[in-house]
Amino acid sequence: MLNPVTAEFEETLRATLPAAAFKEDTTSYLSEPRGRWTGQGFVVSPGSTEEVATVVRACAQARVAIVPYSGGTGLVGGQLLQEGPAPVVLSLERMNQIRAIYPSENVLVCDAGVILADVQKAAEDIGRLFPLSLASEGSARIGGLLSTNAGGVNVLRYGNARAQCLGLEVVRPDGTIWHGLTRLRKDNTGYDLRNLMIGAEGTLGIITGAALKLVPRPVGIGAAMMAVPSPAAALDLLALAGERIGEGIAAFEIVHRAGFDFLAQVGPQVRQPFDDLPDWCVLIDVGLPSGLIPEDALEGLFEAAFEAGLVTDGVIAQSMAQRDAFWHIRESIPEANRRIGSVSSHDISVPLSAVPAFIERAKQALAEVGDFRINCFGHLGDGNLHYNVFPMPGRSRTDYEAERPQVKRVVHDLVHAMEGSVSAEHGIGRLKVKDLEKYGDPAKLAMLRAIKDALDPLGIMNPGAVLAQSG
Amino acid sequence: MLNPVTAEFEETLRATLPAAAFKEDTTSYLSEPRGRWTGQGFVVSPGSTEEVATVVRACAQARVAIVPYSGGTGLVGGQLLQEGPAPVVLSLERMNQIRAIYPSENVLVCDAGVILADVQKAAEDIGRLFPLSLASEGSARIGGLLSTNAGGVNVLRYGNARAQCLGLEVVRPDGTIWHGLTRLRKDNTGYDLRNLMIGAEGTLGIITGAALKLVPRPVGIGAAMMAVPSPAAALDLLALAGERIGEGIAAFEIVHRAGFDFLAQVGPQVRQPFDDLPDWCVLIDVGLPSGLIPEDALEGLFEAAFEAGLVTDGVIAQSMAQRDAFWHIRESIPEANRRIGSVSSHDISVPLSAVPAFIERAKQALAEVGDFRINCFGHLGDGNLHYNVFPMPGRSRTDYEAERPQVKRVVHDLVHAMEGSVSAEHGIGRLKVKDLEKYGDPAKLAMLRAIKDALDPLGIMNPGAVLAQSG
Repeated sequence: MLNPVTAEFEETLRATLPAAAFKEDTTSYLSEPRGRWTGQGFVVSPGSTEEVATVVRACAQARVAIVPYSGGTGLVGGQLLQEGPAPVVLSLERMNQIRAIYPSENVLVCDAGVILADVQKAAEDIGRLFPLSLASEGSARIGGLLSTNAGGVNVLRYGNARAQCLGLEVVRPDGTIWHGLTRLRKDNTGYDLRNLMIGAEGTLGIITGAALKLVPRPVGIGAAMMAVPSPAAALDLLALAGERIGEGIAAFEIVHRAGFDFLAQVGPQVRQPFDDLPDWCVLIDVGLPSGLIPEDALEGLFEAAFEAGLVTDGVIAQSMAQRDAFWHIRESIPEANRRIGSVSSHDISVPLSAVPAFIERAKQALAEVGDFRINCFGHLGDGNLHYNVFPMPGRSRTDYEAERPQVKRVVHDLVHAMEGSVSAEHGIGRLKVKDLEKYGDPAKLAMLRAIKDALDPLGIMNPGAVLAQSG
Repeated sequence: MLNPVTAEFEETLRATLPAAAFKEDTTSYLSEPRGRWTGQGFVVSPGSTEEVATVVRACAQARVAIVPYSGGTGLVGGQLLQEGPAPVVLSLERMNQIRAIYPSENVLVCDAGVILADVQKAAEDIGRLFPLSLASEGSARIGGLLSTNAGGVNVLRYGNARAQCLGLEVVRPDGTIWHGLTRLRKDNTGYDLRNLMIGAEGTLGIITGAALKLVPRPVGIGAAMMAVPSPAAALDLLALAGERIGEGIAAFEIVHRAGFDFLAQVGPQVRQPFDDLPDWCVLIDVGLPSGLIPEDALEGLFEAAFEAGLVTDGVIAQSMAQRDAFWHIRESIPEANRRIGSVSSHDISVPLSAVPAFIERAKQALAEVGDFRINCFGHLGDGNLHYNVFPMPGRSRTDYEAERPQVKRVVHDLVHAMEGSVSAEHGIGRLKVKDLEKYGDPAKLAMLRAIKDALDPLGIMNPGAVLAQSG
């Protein structure tokens, strides 16, 4: 059983940590981006790994829960504990230093509280790229990005957050520190604790530092938007692009017409790239080595694709500003979605070749539940779709409380039947714990539980996230 | 406490599995590539995942140890149990089918007993590349390659075995089966069990199947050997190559003159590429997208490097046959080493920028132990050196029994002091268990032990590998 933070416990923490570790107004730490859930707890912001360890030791001794808090941008409630004994909410924001950069090794070592955009900037300053990139990069912090194994738009080429990390520093649930901040490219000495901590959503320990991989900046950068007759054609276009441009394809995003309609209806304002808005289009981003010209590569791709009937229209960015404008469209869709207010949002993946059938079957299945608008978009190159279901015009999210559970079930059942994942990149948090229980392989669930109990025997680390609280 | 395989237990297994699962001559399963250690046990070769589960359940019930046996090419004794109660040696060789290929997804699903070269061939047949490549690829099997997180020559570009795998099927130590053979590129539903099993050396379960990632075949393939004045110059050359050719650099191997001397002395026979044999040279392999010509890229690199004083001589392959000849040199060095017979071999990594200092300091430290020949070569691009210490001419390995422990200690202490790894790609097996205990971070060791005890509470899975047997 866990205990709540008491006035006495607060005093213990105040006596051991500097005043800067405590906030006057903590409301922002107890809410989530869309205002859907409200958390509780006592917010503490340690300034060093040692201070984190001090807090954790105190919590372990008092059996007080800890909710690690990074940028607060998570969409599945992993950063919020709504009920039960009040926890310590442990914010990493004061640990925001880049500790060291090794240009000749393409390695950057930083505190877990550094904001993603600051890591991107530091890499750019030495002529490198830190390829992790997503809509919330201006506020998301490295610790949370790693703890949720964040995805984003460059996974196709560079992999997810997991693939960007060489080493970790972690405060364990008993307050001991794992000094695993290695810069080594190869190290086969024991089980892969790094990847176990990455994606554990703060339930096995608190990531306090990371050694991150940088990559060379591509020389020739370009982008195009191409209208495709169908998702199946988009997949064929992806294959063709892979054959012609190889690893140079950095991102391959699909956008449905609903995205443009929503943007036109509620903003943010974007410039429409096509004369006739197609049902489906893709945004292709390329980064090429010196000697290759992105506009030529994209032009050649378009011509070959047009001949093969895979595209009906296309615009190739003629400047960085135009490329930015394309990305502005793509990155504004989540905001438009928020403004409309979804009945239910889904971050799903299916095997790549199953994407067209999934889109078709999901549409049919939902039609049997009721009338909805569907905005399906996302990282087609990874088989990862943000499949979001919206109210019909004139109605709102709250009109659909009755249908919501059924919508979720229909989408998730189909994903499961098609060997997909009900959380491709957002994680389990607290929102999808029951989905994991329902759809997860029993042997997998048994291993997750065994690992949790072994590494956090008191159950104080982010209880109720990923796995339901035991006991 | 574990029990040995008894005659009665043998009969139980013979009664439940087909005759094909049992061998007449099992000596080859109880030895290792260099004949250094001899194993023991009863060899069983199940033909299916269900049969593996049957064997594991029987062993769990009888508390009999299981030593998973794949290609038998491991160099650290992970596949051999020398002492203690006789185990079941579980060979995956009969599970050697490629289960399915998904060309449009770049995915291949296979049994764990498939030989690496057969996977490479299957990928080639559909115009793809399976980039894992190492000297033993003609006999090493997928299950062992994943269980040891094998490295090889293409890690620089494509990552190690871990990076080539999307999903696993695993028989757990209690005989239940984890059906984790996903083809998904993104799946954030719970802890990363895949990467936990990969590199666990058969101590947490038995990998019976894998979903592997394929990649497009590079269009323009080429190679060069360049003589460099020093390891530091080789590193600068690597950086220059990265700037000019980017991800097109597939391999960057360093070879010391000792390698050529050994080849000349004991074979295998190779053609020497340089008029004057340099102290150090590198083998650079490139794979470029269409539109770029490898010979031109390597020529340009050589000219720029020559101007910067980073290379003194170079040969660019003018044909695939010449490229193969370069690789034949590189891949023959381990065989020459075996023929000479090392005093002590080390598979180490250090942070990339520390490589030149390591080579210098190791040489000095060993000079204080005695007179040796050193053959240092390997995957410079990954900071991974095979640092092997040999007898002086006219003497043999057995003359150095007294010095061997000291040589090991000197090399490993230095690696540890320089924040490196004493097992970069070969794993811990049984040979390096004490090194892991000695050099491993205490918090890390505690987590390894907790995970082992949680997932294999009876301690039957490959006992004594990675971690010493408890109790």
